[in-house]
Amino acid sequence: METANLSPSQKQALEPGAEKIILDCDTGHDDAVAILLAVGNPKIDLLGVTTIGGNAELEKVTYNSRAVLQEAQVFDVPVHKGCSRPLLTPLRPAAEVHGETGLDGVELPDPKDVPLQEGHAVNWIIDTIMNSDPKTITLVATGPLTNIAMAARLEPAIVERVKRVVLMGGGVYEANSTPVAEFNIWTDPDAAKIVFELPWDVTMIGLDTTHQALCLPEIQQRIEENGGEVGQFMSGLMDFFRLAYQENQDFQNPPVHDPCTIAYIIDPSVVKTRRCAVDVENQPGLTFGETVADMRGPADPTSRTQVTLDLDFEKFWDIVEDAIVRINEKKQESA
Amino acid sequence: METANLSPSQKQALEPGAEKIILDCDTGHDDAVAILLAVGNPKIDLLGVTTIGGNAELEKVTYNSRAVLQEAQVFDVPVHKGCSRPLLTPLRPAAEVHGETGLDGVELPDPKDVPLQEGHAVNWIIDTIMNSDPKTITLVATGPLTNIAMAARLEPAIVERVKRVVLMGGGVYEANSTPVAEFNIWTDPDAAKIVFELPWDVTMIGLDTTHQALCLPEIQQRIEENGGEVGQFMSGLMDFFRLAYQENQDFQNPPVHDPCTIAYIIDPSVVKTRRCAVDVENQPGLTFGETVADMRGPADPTSRTQVTLDLDFEKFWDIVEDAIVRINEKKQESA
Amino acid sequence: METANLSPSQKQALEPGAEKIILDCDTGHDDAVAILLAVGNPKIDLLGVTTIGGNAELEKVTYNSRAVLQEAQVFDVPVHKGCSRPLLTPLRPAAEVHGETGLDGVELPDPKDVPLQEGHAVNWIIDTIMNSDPKTITLVATGPLTNIAMAARLEPAIVERVKRVVLMGGGVYEANSTPVAEFNIWTDPDAAKIVFELPWDVTMIGLDTTHQALCLPEIQQRIEENGGEVGQFMSGLMDFFRLAYQENQDFQNPPVHDPCTIAYIIDPSVVKTRRCAVDVENQPGLTFGETVADMRGPADPTSRTQVTLDLDFEKFWDIVEDAIVRINEKKQESA
Amino acid sequence: METANLSPSQKQALEPGAEKIILDCDTGHDDAVAILLAVGNPKIDLLGVTTIGGNAELEKVTYNSRAVLQEAQVFDVPVHKGCSRPLLTPLRPAAEVHGETGLDGVELPDPKDVPLQEGHAVNWIIDTIMNSDPKTITLVATGPLTNIAMAARLEPAIVERVKRVVLMGGGVYEANSTPVAEFNIWTDPDAAKIVFELPWDVTMIGLDTTHQALCLPEIQQRIEENGGEVGQFMSGLMDFFRLAYQENQDFQNPPVHDPCTIAYIIDPSVVKTRRCAVDVENQPGLTFGETVADMRGPADPTSRTQVTLDLDFEKFWDIVEDAIVRINEKKQESA
Repeated sequence: METANLSPSQKQALEPGAEKIILDCDTGHDDAVAILLAVGNPKIDLLGVTTIGGNAELEKVTYNSRAVLQEAQVFDVPVHKGCSRPLLTPLRPAAEVHGETGLDGVELPDPKDVPLQEGHAVNWIIDTIMNSDPKTITLVATGPLTNIAMAARLEPAIVERVKRVVLMGGGVYEANSTPVAEFNIWTDPDAAKIVFELPWDVTMIGLDTTHQALCLPEIQQRIEENGGEVGQFMSGLMDFFRLAYQENQDFQNPPVHDPCTIAYIIDPSVVKTRRCAVDVENQPGLTFGETVADMRGPADPTSRTQVTLDLDFEKFWDIVEDAIVRINEKKQESA
Repeated sequence: METANLSPSQKQALEPGAEKIILDCDTGHDDAVAILLAVGNPKIDLLGVTTIGGNAELEKVTYNSRAVLQEAQVFDVPVHKGCSRPLLTPLRPAAEVHGETGLDGVELPDPKDVPLQEGHAVNWIIDTIMNSDPKTITLVATGPLTNIAMAARLEPAIVERVKRVVLMGGGVYEANSTPVAEFNIWTDPDAAKIVFELPWDVTMIGLDTTHQALCLPEIQQRIEENGGEVGQFMSGLMDFFRLAYQENQDFQNPPVHDPCTIAYIIDPSVVKTRRCAVDVENQPGLTFGETVADMRGPADPTSRTQVTLDLDFEKFWDIVEDAIVRINEKKQESA
Repeated sequence: METANLSPSQKQALEPGAEKIILDCDTGHDDAVAILLAVGNPKIDLLGVTTIGGNAELEKVTYNSRAVLQEAQVFDVPVHKGCSRPLLTPLRPAAEVHGETGLDGVELPDPKDVPLQEGHAVNWIIDTIMNSDPKTITLVATGPLTNIAMAARLEPAIVERVKRVVLMGGGVYEANSTPVAEFNIWTDPDAAKIVFELPWDVTMIGLDTTHQALCLPEIQQRIEENGGEVGQFMSGLMDFFRLAYQENQDFQNPPVHDPCTIAYIIDPSVVKTRRCAVDVENQPGLTFGETVADMRGPADPTSRTQVTLDLDFEKFWDIVEDAIVRINEKKQESA
Repeated sequence: METANLSPSQKQALEPGAEKIILDCDTGHDDAVAILLAVGNPKIDLLGVTTIGGNAELEKVTYNSRAVLQEAQVFDVPVHKGCSRPLLTPLRPAAEVHGETGLDGVELPDPKDVPLQEGHAVNWIIDTIMNSDPKTITLVATGPLTNIAMAARLEPAIVERVKRVVLMGGGVYEANSTPVAEFNIWTDPDAAKIVFELPWDVTMIGLDTTHQALCLPEIQQRIEENGGEVGQFMSGLMDFFRLAYQENQDFQNPPVHDPCTIAYIIDPSVVKTRRCAVDVENQPGLTFGETVADMRGPADPTSRTQVTLDLDFEKFWDIVEDAIVRINEKKQESA
């Protein structure tokens, strides 16, 4: 394990009131875009990246996370390694979607300037939250919720101390791993059940939204043209991702799930939300891993949990493109 | 138990090729309309009505079924009483939707000319199917599937002998009894699981379709104006049903679920169908009673099961209105 | 299906007060002994045999049941065929214990004088009970409980009309099909759950008792020596059964489960009983098919259900031997 | 949280080869005896006590653990506080058995010399194991297995590094919280499932053994007479525990479960063991929290898991009495 050695900040200059987030991810193709969005937008203050086995094994997604930060030339965001497997269910990586490395399709840079930090991600999450002012940190999860659940069980006091949880996972009407379950939740439904039941504010950005975040060829071309080296990097990822989705999930263009979380924090109007009860089926069987949102009757504004249903496609991709362009500009400056 | 004593047919003169059906129902307000549609349309040859505890207790729904036939002056359709409760789950009648009698809101005629037949509905279903030509009878179920499941377990040979099963129940995206379960399936998920797993052709007309079959005031008015006594009868039912749905399910107008099954048989173009795998969650817990249809990727034309998603609103109500008008005309003739 | 054609009674002359029973069985080796005990003891008035798929497929166990009656030269006990499979679970016959025919090891007589009766076993059970005086008939089940559950759901009135249910199945501390489940219950836990929950008196004679009913070589020898042709027949069955248990279940001698039910009715002192709550786990998973008896604290004399724990080995085998001897004597007389 | 400040060792002088253990407990009456046995026997090298919510809430059992060490005048065994609740199930303390404090019946000494250590028990367990020589530390658990499961998920490398796990929990034939579940396992069946499935050596000392560890009046009298102040302390606990078991569990004398674990490590001949597969039912329902041990056929010497069935009553209580006497002697010396 390498020691911490953070360079002076090379993230974007932050806007006043930028939201402090911890990004817990299992870096595959769409997590990579989420990381780029988190470091490329001035409204996001990325305190750290924590990793979790999911799309690929823990060692791979940890390496990928560091490589994406290296690509962005952001060296001052600490990366901590988290849990290697779900609480009760065996890990079933999605190699058919993300390839053997978890980030197939591009040559990743050597993450030599983004060392892996000592200490477990779960402890780092706890310490970071407990040492911050109350209600200032948002937990963003784009992988299975194992780390988040473990942190809340190890230190229950974090629950009332975080500002909120924003996660990519589940679905109201849409599913992928089974007819009714989405991959992140299906991978660790027990952790998900813990997270949804805790008395904090949870925004579930599920497949109903993210299946609309399609990287159309014209979008990809725009990013490639305007995003320079970083745009090329993202475009390479999208080429692989498109083929994987064409071959495996009957999609023409890949849904870029994970950055929807960050985009929602940057601009909540990018999705429509509905406050309602959400629970998770964690019993083995037909509906294992299903997120059950109560869509009957009117929304319940008092509910701690909310789901998102729609996506403002143009606004979403403008936000992503903007971040890619900014990262590239900064990278060129520092080169 | 009264003895069989069937008068000469007072059903509509049947068209050549009319579909022979057995209607298994738990007669509440929408089952009543299904019965009327089945006796009022010349494309439907209603061989018999069988009853099942569901919307209300067995004795009530059996009486209601007979009373609806009495109202229609149809005395030659035998009514047999079936199972009083689900296989494993306790019966939980929907008194909040259908009232104490199961058919509140109108004064029911004394069903003196529609005697209850001897013998159990399950045995009558078996005998009727086994004594018919293969693939000539369609089982239509608008209540819990207990009778149908029992019949198939008692005489497995009926499964390949019936033409198909068309049922009102479940939902792909819509639910009512729980966030993910519809009343008929939720009442007896074990029976439903049996029915969906058997190797016959099953059309599930779920809430995605039937929540569109709203009895708008203008529809009701049309039926009342054109349907004479029988229209008045249906209109009285709809008044009660509307209030029940307004008070209990946040609907402005009542969805008239059950006749969608008969309408689909009369004119398949009244709904859109998709062939895909359908299974039922019968384990206790969060998703108890959910119908799980696989909507991922393209439809599977080889699937034995199909779901319906949409409803041609105008066509549906034209079909219903036509039947009410015909029944009323015949009733006036025979008066 | 052959027509009924019952000869004058060749069963044993009955004692006054002999218990009327219906024997519902899936005739393998130990069911065969149960049938012999039921026709060979004057305290048992066997009204009929009904069959159920279990140890082997329905056609086989039905044939076996008739053949055992033929062997006993009892031609006036009607045999009706019941359900071919469990309610929800697929049938998994125990060919490793009972062989391909379900009754391997002896040459079965052609059951030419024991015709299969018309009508379904479930309906015959219902009709027989409903046409008898209340509380006069005991239902004895030595196979999966599918027929019994079906009968009770089809005609709930039988539940208060039967005297009691005595069944071989389950176990408190002992198991065979899984670490915690016995074969009959595990084959149809849903039917078992129905039967145990119904408000009738149920005696569960489980593996705790029947694993003590071992056919030791000296017992077998005694029966062979004293039982003539019929003793030879039983001995042949036991030879096969012993080998099957040695090879499959780590028993030196075969436990002859099913006749424990009849022996208990003949002489209740043959077992020790405890009244306590009993429930059945019918959810898929580790404990599927387990009978859960509450052994904590003292017995509950008000409980409808009771379990048996011990067996008076000598008394049990004396009862069995006596029946074999009587059947053989009667057989020789009539020869 | 108080800082660590350990006095020079006042534990018993250890024998060469004494087994290093970590004792993870939810200190009620029998955990208290387990702690006393662990500090009073020279074959046990107690590295630390970690606490877990179970018999009572976490704060209470942590205080109780410190108070018992204070009573024993052992100030050099660190106490770390662990998880306050099970992974998924709500905590349901056993106040009816252990009273409001979790250790009702005696006046506890102020644990002023046994400070609570900083840091979470789970992290301390991990660090202690990872910093020790491989296969030198035995994890002893006498409460719910939440801490142990959390530690193994947070740092999977501990699994092959510990020597073994010895736990009080579950049962083969005996149960208490439900007809088939024991309290510790029933409190957190998910954690238990994790612990039993991990590839380490697990000895389950269940109710079959511990229900034999009855504190008979003559045993209690002996300990009181020979154990001085410490014997009095234990006797006071036993008085309360006896009444609680008489009132709640139909026992005449209290089973002193938890020290059976330590006694087994001190002298394995105190119980009979059987190596066999053990799994845990963690699905809600009738068998929730059951430990399923496969007792069919012969033992499997290759199994990682073993259960214990019997107890050498005399030997067990001799071991306990010996420890009480030693602790008291040392206490008097140091007074």
